[in-house]
Amino acid sequence: MSSTFRVLGIAGSLRKQSYNRALLRTATQLAPASLTFETAEWADFPPYDADVEAAGRPESVVRFRAQIAAADAILIATPEYNYSIPGGLKNAVDWASRPPEQPFNGKLLGIIGASGGDGGTMRSQYHWRQVAVFLNLHVMNKPEVFVRRAGDKFDAEGNLTDEAIRKTLTQYMQSFAEWIASHKK
Amino acid sequence: MSSTFRVLGIAGSLRKQSYNRALLRTATQLAPASLTFETAEWADFPPYDADVEAAGRPESVVRFRAQIAAADAILIATPEYNYSIPGGLKNAVDWASRPPEQPFNGKLLGIIGASGGDGGTMRSQYHWRQVAVFLNLHVMNKPEVFVRRAGDKFDAEGNLTDEAIRKTLTQYMQSFAEWIASHKK
Amino acid sequence: MSSTFRVLGIAGSLRKQSYNRALLRTATQLAPASLTFETAEWADFPPYDADVEAAGRPESVVRFRAQIAAADAILIATPEYNYSIPGGLKNAVDWASRPPEQPFNGKLLGIIGASGGDGGTMRSQYHWRQVAVFLNLHVMNKPEVFVRRAGDKFDAEGNLTDEAIRKTLTQYMQSFAEWIASHKK
Amino acid sequence: MSSTFRVLGIAGSLRKQSYNRALLRTATQLAPASLTFETAEWADFPPYDADVEAAGRPESVVRFRAQIAAADAILIATPEYNYSIPGGLKNAVDWASRPPEQPFNGKLLGIIGASGGDGGTMRSQYHWRQVAVFLNLHVMNKPEVFVRRAGDKFDAEGNLTDEAIRKTLTQYMQSFAEWIASHKK
Repeated sequence: MSSTFRVLGIAGSLRKQSYNRALLRTATQLAPASLTFETAEWADFPPYDADVEAAGRPESVVRFRAQIAAADAILIATPEYNYSIPGGLKNAVDWASRPPEQPFNGKLLGIIGASGGDGGTMRSQYHWRQVAVFLNLHVMNKPEVFVRRAGDKFDAEGNLTDEAIRKTLTQYMQSFAEWIASHKK
Repeated sequence: MSSTFRVLGIAGSLRKQSYNRALLRTATQLAPASLTFETAEWADFPPYDADVEAAGRPESVVRFRAQIAAADAILIATPEYNYSIPGGLKNAVDWASRPPEQPFNGKLLGIIGASGGDGGTMRSQYHWRQVAVFLNLHVMNKPEVFVRRAGDKFDAEGNLTDEAIRKTLTQYMQSFAEWIASHKK
Repeated sequence: MSSTFRVLGIAGSLRKQSYNRALLRTATQLAPASLTFETAEWADFPPYDADVEAAGRPESVVRFRAQIAAADAILIATPEYNYSIPGGLKNAVDWASRPPEQPFNGKLLGIIGASGGDGGTMRSQYHWRQVAVFLNLHVMNKPEVFVRRAGDKFDAEGNLTDEAIRKTLTQYMQSFAEWIASHKK
Repeated sequence: MSSTFRVLGIAGSLRKQSYNRALLRTATQLAPASLTFETAEWADFPPYDADVEAAGRPESVVRFRAQIAAADAILIATPEYNYSIPGGLKNAVDWASRPPEQPFNGKLLGIIGASGGDGGTMRSQYHWRQVAVFLNLHVMNKPEVFVRRAGDKFDAEGNLTDEAIRKTLTQYMQSFAEWIASHKK
């Protein structure tokens, strides 16, 4: 198959040395050539406020919504904060989801994540899956990527040095590409 | 018992006509005299960023953390956005939860919520309960307050006009006060 | 399209006057002709025990697994017990899911439910959606069917008398049929 | 403190070599002397059926309910089946929870669990915590015990050989005992 598909990558953490930024970057490097990537920026989104929205969406929100609308699939690399979804990232999704267009509607979603602890963002990822029901995002079931004890898996430059996880992530991106292709044919 | 307890009320929506602001305001009006209330403000919190935090917490975050630390109990009036916790409010909690102090630790939490739809913020409230495990917040089990079809329950000035819900909310605040007293004796 | 698809209906309650049996029966009646139905029986399944399984699966379990394997899609009408999945029905699914075959793998799932209270089995349905991730069942996102206060919606013979819900359920079955067809083409 | 408290231990798996039976047994051995233990049996519970219940509860269910009623606290050692609560164990809890008495009401709950995989029953435990809200069981927040890759942690006789987990479990039981005492004073 020679088609290519557009994936919008969203890293759920803002700090420069973020494991999830590094994980997302690695995922794009390990992905099959059928997938092309763009990255979302949401660092300056204010807390969602319907009154602000009524007065006009911030320009960065408008750009984020356009990126979502143009994508075939979304790939979220999510941290876990306080046993759930990071508020900042959820806020970005909340801004993006507002009517009338709801740009996520019917698109495909992959979720991966890295955390310093033992859960590997598991608790966060199942909350995202519930969000996806409302947004009518179709989430790939398997494989799942839970990077535990991320501090041992990346070097200081954010390179994923753990071979087992590189392999898992390679398989993930291969499955993701095939799954997207099967939905888009 | 003549003790009074300090409750920090947090409304999860920023818009002026918010049902959850109105719900929280009503809850404070219906509460027994043993509870005194303060209200949190988080409208200007940027998305959590560990690099920003390292350079110094925003002043409004510092104030929010101090309010939490000074409270005996927290009362959240939460919307539900996209079948989960509102991102902006979660972001405020994420900022507040960071070490070293973790000001929520060991405190008491009540959760109530109002939504326009039929779920009454049910999906959001169970996600909050999972967050509370990490924060070591003790959440009152019952009663639960799920205000459905909020558009029919409040008038244009944000007064709660539905008698059944006023009664439920009165019972909730009575139980909340007794539960706080039983933990603080 | 002239294809027909086989749906295995599973009612999550055993009592004769069960709302969920009635809901499932009504769903089959309102479904498009492209769907044919069979019904699962699990009333005599013992609690799952790997030692018992090693000695030989109960015959009714073997039959249930064969029904699942032969189906294109599964339709669960679930109660909610104690804010989660009914144990008996989950136990049936646990028996069915065991290797080597895992008959649910890759199949399509619809979830509907009725309860006496206000949640309409919402809490139960999201737990089922998490189960579906492990089983690699693809769950239809929308619409969702949450029948609240079921005692007011069915007559004594188990006929669904509420017109609004009949309409919702008709739409659900239409969407379900189209969704199955789109995955099976 | 010289008071002793009665804990009802419930292992969520029936097979003889169950990790969760072994975990529960070890927990009772490592517990402070202030806790005394009894163990629940639910191996012969049929799937919950309100018609059967109306005709008379099975004797083993009656016994289970009496054990719960007599306990100060419950300790569940739960497996995770299909990313959720084991059906058989949930079914036992469903039988026990039925009105009029609801014997769990207001009691204290500890949850621990062991699994062969990497999640350590995390997904199952958060579903139990939601169940606990309905049952008005107060669940200890922390510490949490998630025994991962249980096959490496127990020997063939079911002895917990992993020192790190023995230590965690000892701390858990110490905290559990103190927490029970603080609620019962």
